[in-house]
Amino acid sequence: MGELSIERDEVFRLRTQRTPGLLAKALAAAGEHGANIGEIETVYIGADYNIREVAIIAPDAAAIDRIAEAMDAIEGVTVLPGHIDKVFDQHRGGKIEVRSRATVRTLQDIREVYTPGVARVVQAIAEDESVADAFTWRGRTVAIVTNGTRVLGLGNVGPAAALPVVEGKALFYAQLVDVNAVPIVLDADDPKDVIDTVARMAPGFGAIHLEDIATPGVYEVERELERRLSIPVFHDDQHGTAVVVVAAILSAARRTGRDIADLRFGQLGLGAAGSAIAGLASGFGFAEVRAYDPNPLGIERLEEVAEPGVDLVTGTDDATFDGIVDGCDVLVMTTGRAGLLPPERVRPGQIIMALTNPIAEIAPAEAVGAGAAVAADGSIVNNVLAYPGLIRGALDAKVPGVTAAMERAAAFAIADSAPGDQLLPEPLDVSVHAAVAGAVASAAGDAVQNPSQ
Amino acid sequence: MGELSIERDEVFRLRTQRTPGLLAKALAAAGEHGANIGEIETVYIGADYNIREVAIIAPDAAAIDRIAEAMDAIEGVTVLPGHIDKVFDQHRGGKIEVRSRATVRTLQDIREVYTPGVARVVQAIAEDESVADAFTWRGRTVAIVTNGTRVLGLGNVGPAAALPVVEGKALFYAQLVDVNAVPIVLDADDPKDVIDTVARMAPGFGAIHLEDIATPGVYEVERELERRLSIPVFHDDQHGTAVVVVAAILSAARRTGRDIADLRFGQLGLGAAGSAIAGLASGFGFAEVRAYDPNPLGIERLEEVAEPGVDLVTGTDDATFDGIVDGCDVLVMTTGRAGLLPPERVRPGQIIMALTNPIAEIAPAEAVGAGAAVAADGSIVNNVLAYPGLIRGALDAKVPGVTAAMERAAAFAIADSAPGDQLLPEPLDVSVHAAVAGAVASAAGDAVQNPSQ
Repeated sequence: MGELSIERDEVFRLRTQRTPGLLAKALAAAGEHGANIGEIETVYIGADYNIREVAIIAPDAAAIDRIAEAMDAIEGVTVLPGHIDKVFDQHRGGKIEVRSRATVRTLQDIREVYTPGVARVVQAIAEDESVADAFTWRGRTVAIVTNGTRVLGLGNVGPAAALPVVEGKALFYAQLVDVNAVPIVLDADDPKDVIDTVARMAPGFGAIHLEDIATPGVYEVERELERRLSIPVFHDDQHGTAVVVVAAILSAARRTGRDIADLRFGQLGLGAAGSAIAGLASGFGFAEVRAYDPNPLGIERLEEVAEPGVDLVTGTDDATFDGIVDGCDVLVMTTGRAGLLPPERVRPGQIIMALTNPIAEIAPAEAVGAGAAVAADGSIVNNVLAYPGLIRGALDAKVPGVTAAMERAAAFAIADSAPGDQLLPEPLDVSVHAAVAGAVASAAGDAVQNPSQ
Repeated sequence: MGELSIERDEVFRLRTQRTPGLLAKALAAAGEHGANIGEIETVYIGADYNIREVAIIAPDAAAIDRIAEAMDAIEGVTVLPGHIDKVFDQHRGGKIEVRSRATVRTLQDIREVYTPGVARVVQAIAEDESVADAFTWRGRTVAIVTNGTRVLGLGNVGPAAALPVVEGKALFYAQLVDVNAVPIVLDADDPKDVIDTVARMAPGFGAIHLEDIATPGVYEVERELERRLSIPVFHDDQHGTAVVVVAAILSAARRTGRDIADLRFGQLGLGAAGSAIAGLASGFGFAEVRAYDPNPLGIERLEEVAEPGVDLVTGTDDATFDGIVDGCDVLVMTTGRAGLLPPERVRPGQIIMALTNPIAEIAPAEAVGAGAAVAADGSIVNNVLAYPGLIRGALDAKVPGVTAAMERAAAFAIADSAPGDQLLPEPLDVSVHAAVAGAVASAAGDAVQNPSQ
């Protein structure tokens, strides 16, 4: 979901006397104040003491001082002064760069990559624009577009402040699927201005990835750009999230030995992510998909995005809060309401995805304690699992859009890649993304052959 | 000037028996048909024969077959079949790419470059936008914007076909000055649409490089964006060209032992490049700058861009074709009229830049034969000498625009970097670009201290 977390990462510089067990004591003290321990790097080994950089995930910013004091109070342990802010260090100068693919060494090279040679490539594209996909970077380039109106859990922070987020997504495109992603942050709150701007710049890109644009405006942006452009337009907050959530459910069904054709799927909350999740679930093969939101706009939105299948139920007695909680085997919640689901409402064997951040509708441990077969919260939903392979697959297949069939293929590929009893695979495993891209491209090819899919 | 050349580059695969002198004979035969020889690479050495790839610059496309036949006619030499098109090879997949600056290996890395860590960088920028220059890529990132309405000598080829040209410029930014350049090709003929689009996307960039946009619309685009944005906006076809031409003139003056304060500067032709050249020359320290164009719009344009100095002469009897040709020590022509200047009009000791492509107002050899001290044509004007260092210097200095003082500093730095008796330095020499960037940043700093400059 990419929502704001209140956890805080911090790196402490810790000096410990060379007495066995001291580091463990310091970490235990940190743990008593809720610290999760991240990486530990030894940066100095002296005769009397060592210095280590210890990454801590504190439950919130206020806990940092308490953690530092607790470690410092142990004899032989000193928390050194000097704040190390790895987050800002990692962001300094930006997280991505544009590089040349060929080293230009000679005047002959210049004549080939630039004038006069380039004029022949220009002419070839002017005669047949499709040639541009092969002889420019656009065949493997996506614009990540945001206007910064809904960034993480921070709301409308504006275009410049949204840049680190889309740079982060661009970094994953580069590292995981070798796709060039260009952050485009727009000073444009009006969806019409976003649409016009993106439509004008589209000739330089092979796909458009929409990110962190507020609802409901983003629906208009997505719909209108899909209509006007002949390249994939992908709103990650909706469809990337949906693919990952459905992949987790497929994986959970498999772990519990159930066939999705036997499962009733229920969705509570039909915002951008919720309507996309229910929309993707419909047409997937579940026994039934029920969806509910107290706001009628959510139902409208869902009916717009859902597959024209017969399995979607809204507006009936079954498709109410109670009907869904009591009647569904799979329960997905994106309601924005912390603690919405009391443990006593959990049905034995239910698969529960309680995705509201930072505090879920029900804590996974509590849900499992109350009888759920599998339960997860928003921390499992990492869109990095989905969007790189989806866009790479769409670019490889050179299709004009991302279809539900392509999204379903991505969800299956992600679920298939989950090792052991994990619900989802590791997001940094490039083989996962290659599998997703391959499955998506293949589904895209099927769709070209059989457009009704 | 980046104009279209009619020359054609071709790579032949040449099989020669291992008899001394055969390659030379083949090259001589090619030369008889006007071929310039580029790089020669031996790709196979056999017992009886060698195979080499020979790059040829043919005077035009039609000459290629004649050159191949002439070489093939020599006993022991075979031009192998199989067309090698190095130009299209070099363009395949695009010439640039977006890469990650850090390898993300662990979940802790993800927490730092993406959620949750990124939220703190977002908040820092939301509170103070200037922080974005340090903690995103924008402080070293330029958008190269074109709408493809005036590409090389090819005219209005549209946005997609302009992409290889701006990719080429981006490649030089990456290789020469370590600046991220993002090609942005716009489906927007109307200058107002270009302005709106660029203004909206500007929060993600540290500078805007305008390229290959038709006059007079580009003047409005440049003027309006300079007014609306607080980052440098640089139209390379005007100002990059002007810097390189003036650098060549400074260099020529030095070689001929003359002080620019003693030289009358004359400009014939006031299109985009011509008005920028005369505009930059004014305020430079020449004894006088005379400029003429039969089209009054050219004069208007010049008066708009020129420094408010006292040394610019237009509209008088001195500032006519005859007044300039007969009265100026430096004669720069950007008239679009091949062969305009008869050799008998050349004055002894004149410095002549006859810049119309592909056929100049007077051939340099002819001008020197008629008494010119130095003469050059459009082939010397390679904007790659100017724009990378200019933009890098402007980004380093964090100034809101490129001033004439910065352009003058660039011209001096380029002239100072020319080795031996060359008019201009090698465009691929990174030390040249470092010198230009340093001079520009320094001039920008002076301007900040003394805004009247």
